Amino acid sequence: MGEIAYVNGTWTTPEKAMIPAEDRGFLFGDALYEVAAGFDGRLWALERHMKRLERGVREVEMEGVDVGHIRGLIEEAFRRSKLRDALVYVQISRGVAPRRHDWPKGLVPGIFAFVRPLPVLDARLSREGVSLVTTPEIRWGRCDIKSTNLLANCLAKHKAGQAGAFEAVFVRDDGIVTECSSNSLFLVKKGRLITREEGPHVLPGITQGLVVETAERVGVAVDRRSFTLNELLAADESFLTGTSLDLLPVTRVDGRVIAEGAVGELTKRLREAYIDRRKRGDDAP
Amino acid sequence: MGEIAYVNGTWTTPEKAMIPAEDRGFLFGDALYEVAAGFDGRLWALERHMKRLERGVREVEMEGVDVGHIRGLIEEAFRRSKLRDALVYVQISRGVAPRRHDWPKGLVPGIFAFVRPLPVLDARLSREGVSLVTTPEIRWGRCDIKSTNLLANCLAKHKAGQAGAFEAVFVRDDGIVTECSSNSLFLVKKGRLITREEGPHVLPGITQGLVVETAERVGVAVDRRSFTLNELLAADESFLTGTSLDLLPVTRVDGRVIAEGAVGELTKRLREAYIDRRKRGDDAP
Repeated sequence: MGEIAYVNGTWTTPEKAMIPAEDRGFLFGDALYEVAAGFDGRLWALERHMKRLERGVREVEMEGVDVGHIRGLIEEAFRRSKLRDALVYVQISRGVAPRRHDWPKGLVPGIFAFVRPLPVLDARLSREGVSLVTTPEIRWGRCDIKSTNLLANCLAKHKAGQAGAFEAVFVRDDGIVTECSSNSLFLVKKGRLITREEGPHVLPGITQGLVVETAERVGVAVDRRSFTLNELLAADESFLTGTSLDLLPVTRVDGRVIAEGAVGELTKRLREAYIDRRKRGDDAP
Repeated sequence: MGEIAYVNGTWTTPEKAMIPAEDRGFLFGDALYEVAAGFDGRLWALERHMKRLERGVREVEMEGVDVGHIRGLIEEAFRRSKLRDALVYVQISRGVAPRRHDWPKGLVPGIFAFVRPLPVLDARLSREGVSLVTTPEIRWGRCDIKSTNLLANCLAKHKAGQAGAFEAVFVRDDGIVTECSSNSLFLVKKGRLITREEGPHVLPGITQGLVVETAERVGVAVDRRSFTLNELLAADESFLTGTSLDLLPVTRVDGRVIAEGAVGELTKRLREAYIDRRKRGDDAP
């Protein structure tokens, strides 16, 4: 089978899927999304993705979204694709209506989903680490909502690409680091793991949460707190987490070598523990 | 004719227009838009809308956008609609590609446009003034770019509707007022007109700019500067400007009467001067 898509009741391919131009997802970015991964024929941490979606639905007051139905669709799409290792994307928009900012009551949510093979990362990235560029934090104040208002993220990722870097990290005017354009960021200092606390300015990353738990399980102290660019530059180790990359070491920021340019021991250990957990399908909290 | 739409080369109706689900406008809000008005069979201030679009295209590095062609499309859509008083909406997205934040080179921009009758405002609104609700400024840091990343604006407008207000005004934590969810805001104090200066946090409103010019033409002093919610609450007069409403007095904010609850003299005078200018089709700077 391979690539497959679902759009408002019809199974098709991603290239052929069409949506009404008056879908509020298109006109306003009035839509939420999730990207779940399947590994070796099994969806990973789907329940957590669904909980995050459910929370988003509440936060933006989207009517008529049946998260159980969407979960079933994701499972069906993954099954139909016959892919063993895949990303399943699902986007729920508020519905279709003549354009005006406020929405009428009783809209029927639009659903678009597709399954594509999981991108295979160059093994060198996890062996040697990746580089980041910094970019001013210009995103909106509710990045905890996984909406399709992603132009700032796209521009940041483009900037990274232009600089030959893997990812862009958002840094506020006061030096506080929030997160990367589509991944979470960790650092290690004196044996402690540090990653941003949850709040309105960052997405609660699914892999981020799983790695925090994994660290705690193996006895690594974790501080959920804000940190600055200077702390990142002076970190003993640093790494990214994300659904499609598990955990990737960071060794350069804006061209400066950090963490002595090498993949740290704790990073390696957590990466192995996390991937082991994923392989066992152990996504219970 | 009436309502008409154009989508990627085809003329249709807004309801029937379909776009590819992989349009980056749908997946990322990676799209710009303009809403121009036609009055009495003539498009108003179109050149200014096109200049703003052209600037946006540069700012987000969108490739392959021919603003002259888009201008022609807007004119053709308005003509084909046979409407005398209409809003012409046009949305340009970066193009269609398999989903990833960074974009490949050589995308062909997507174009969606529609024409609908100009909404007729209740005459009471301009006679009695409208009410605003305040809402925290949570939008992104590049509101000068007229992109479809509008979820914050939608949520704000919804909040206004829930409160029985006409519009929502964004107020930062430090008390600074930026603008409304889809309109610009002015206040009058001691005979001087005050409206936010241009910058990354506000949209350079077309009607706003025209009203500033109009005021200067009739000898009213204009301060382009930030102002606070307290200044708004203590204003002698206040009004909104926007393409679909010209200039509307504001008499209430969060249920509190401002400007003594009456439409101010300067507001009336500027509204008349602006509408007169619009009727004469005088949109030259």
